[in-house]
Amino acid sequence: MSFWAVIPAGGAGTRLWPLSRSAAPKFLRDLTGSGRTLLQETYDRLVPLAGDRFVIVTGAAHREAVCEQLPGLPEGGLIAEPSGRDSMAAIGIAAAFLERRDPDAVMGSFAADHVIKGAPSFESAVRTAVEIARERDWLVTLGITPTFPSTAFGYIREGEPLVGHDDAVVVGEFGEKPSAEVAEQYLAKGCYRWNAGMFVVRPRVLLDLLADHDPEFAATLRTIAAEPERLAELWETLPKIALDHAVAEPAADAGRVAMVPAAFGWDDIGDFDSLATLLEHARTAAASGPTILGDAELVHAIDSTGLVVPRSGRTIALVGMEDVVVVDMEDAVLVTTRAHAQRVKQMVAGLQAGDRADLT
Amino acid sequence: MSFWAVIPAGGAGTRLWPLSRSAAPKFLRDLTGSGRTLLQETYDRLVPLAGDRFVIVTGAAHREAVCEQLPGLPEGGLIAEPSGRDSMAAIGIAAAFLERRDPDAVMGSFAADHVIKGAPSFESAVRTAVEIARERDWLVTLGITPTFPSTAFGYIREGEPLVGHDDAVVVGEFGEKPSAEVAEQYLAKGCYRWNAGMFVVRPRVLLDLLADHDPEFAATLRTIAAEPERLAELWETLPKIALDHAVAEPAADAGRVAMVPAAFGWDDIGDFDSLATLLEHARTAAASGPTILGDAELVHAIDSTGLVVPRSGRTIALVGMEDVVVVDMEDAVLVTTRAHAQRVKQMVAGLQAGDRADLT
Repeated sequence: MSFWAVIPAGGAGTRLWPLSRSAAPKFLRDLTGSGRTLLQETYDRLVPLAGDRFVIVTGAAHREAVCEQLPGLPEGGLIAEPSGRDSMAAIGIAAAFLERRDPDAVMGSFAADHVIKGAPSFESAVRTAVEIARERDWLVTLGITPTFPSTAFGYIREGEPLVGHDDAVVVGEFGEKPSAEVAEQYLAKGCYRWNAGMFVVRPRVLLDLLADHDPEFAATLRTIAAEPERLAELWETLPKIALDHAVAEPAADAGRVAMVPAAFGWDDIGDFDSLATLLEHARTAAASGPTILGDAELVHAIDSTGLVVPRSGRTIALVGMEDVVVVDMEDAVLVTTRAHAQRVKQMVAGLQAGDRADLT
Repeated sequence: MSFWAVIPAGGAGTRLWPLSRSAAPKFLRDLTGSGRTLLQETYDRLVPLAGDRFVIVTGAAHREAVCEQLPGLPEGGLIAEPSGRDSMAAIGIAAAFLERRDPDAVMGSFAADHVIKGAPSFESAVRTAVEIARERDWLVTLGITPTFPSTAFGYIREGEPLVGHDDAVVVGEFGEKPSAEVAEQYLAKGCYRWNAGMFVVRPRVLLDLLADHDPEFAATLRTIAAEPERLAELWETLPKIALDHAVAEPAADAGRVAMVPAAFGWDDIGDFDSLATLLEHARTAAASGPTILGDAELVHAIDSTGLVVPRSGRTIALVGMEDVVVVDMEDAVLVTTRAHAQRVKQMVAGLQAGDRADLT
């Protein structure tokens, strides 16, 4: 079906420090104990749909690690960004190259650091999205069934049914991360879904939608695709903006975004609290004590719950710690609680401001 | 005044694991950040009173470390116990040797792992105790002014005034560690003091008091002192009993124990909670964040309090941890709270039962 999988592999995963580092971000890590990194799992999940039609967009610093983790990646399947310029530039440059390379291409963009449970449901939703994107010049997104009133994710409001597709709707609106109260209302209303940032679209359509908003941005991306030797020169001129703002929201306002509701489990593992929730779901009901991501023999716990990540080889002893998070690395140990997990970002900012950027 | 300082240097300090280990117990550690170990501080404090008249009683395993830490210790100033047999054997063997060595001796026994603030007050109380012990065949103890209703210490009830000594009383009774309720009552009554296990006595009197309770025990100690080559052979036959039970309590019942009330600050640093309290008192009022015993540059804390002991050289990051205890060693890290500090003992027992005695 000439479907191309685009995987933007960026983001430092700051709130997962010290497990995730700028030099070794979360997509290069096995965060689920599966034996595969998040990037590898993303790739594996897309092979049945894309075959060998992959474009990974990642920072130049991670090029080597990505190639090592994905030995099956074909020649030309990786674009190295000279610097991080947010998702519109990353996904847009992939679209510009694909537009020239395969006139029949439909691309789907899927972040390298998300976790998905339910491969058949995922594949089926993507196939539907590809059909719609092939039929008409629209942007198509997947809408995740919300399982709790998250304040960490954006939401998508369902609009009218999509004519000709019982299993899709027109997007009414993209909404920012809501307050707790608003999130509760969204769930009660039943017509809101999580925005996982998954977009399926013809490359030409994506760039044209961008051109409606910022013609110069789209033109520069197309120039780079025509003259790849100018990448380094032109890259730094690209605006730093998320695809949601640059394309998805304006296109939704214009009634040109479809959504395929999807039933698979999804998480972006934003912090240690969500990682703990994710790993807890994988445990047997009888398990007690903290969830351990790593060698359980290193962890000794009395009356303790939470998440322990033993990665230094040392013994970790917990006594009476409820919902604690302990991440034990060679050079640093983090101790926080699940409730404070979001604030790890603040710690990383503090280390960077205090001349300890080497640790981040 | 022919005063001999006896320092029983034993006890694993289990509740201070992993800072304190069986191979490197707390008396060999600097727990106050003073630059001197608890043993060295105990020694320093007694030099003005004892000169070079010291007897350190310690486990054979610690002989070398003790000699290294106390280079001024005279020849014959150390008795190495073949095994730990509680305080009566440790202090009794010192008494038996001193009885033969110096007929004029008055000995004072002071644990190697206590912290004392207020050297002049300590010296003055000991001098008074020595006077009393020299005058009459009594056991003399120091009674510490209680500063809070501790349930971790034993108490001494004041009896009648001691005739001829305005600054001392007869001991009414030694009491075990009380419940919280009873401890409150003790403080309200005002006639109870903490029992710090400090005893001043003529060696002969101590052994005779022991003989009243267990003649064979006293006889064996005297045999060892007469024939030191039989130490290893006879040591294992000695009962394991605390001096309080073997001598102090029966002697108090017989009206033969005096107490010198003492105003100096005292702590036995039983666990990380009491260590935290002790170190907090030494901080400036303006200080915030956790108390740090070690290199403060290794600790980064956001909205956190408690005690951090950075001893592995790694960075320790705390986010939103109240009254936490983090002890970071090369081979193990402990995470608990001040409220659970007593239960560290349970962790050590668990490690020993679970084939990880190497860590303890």
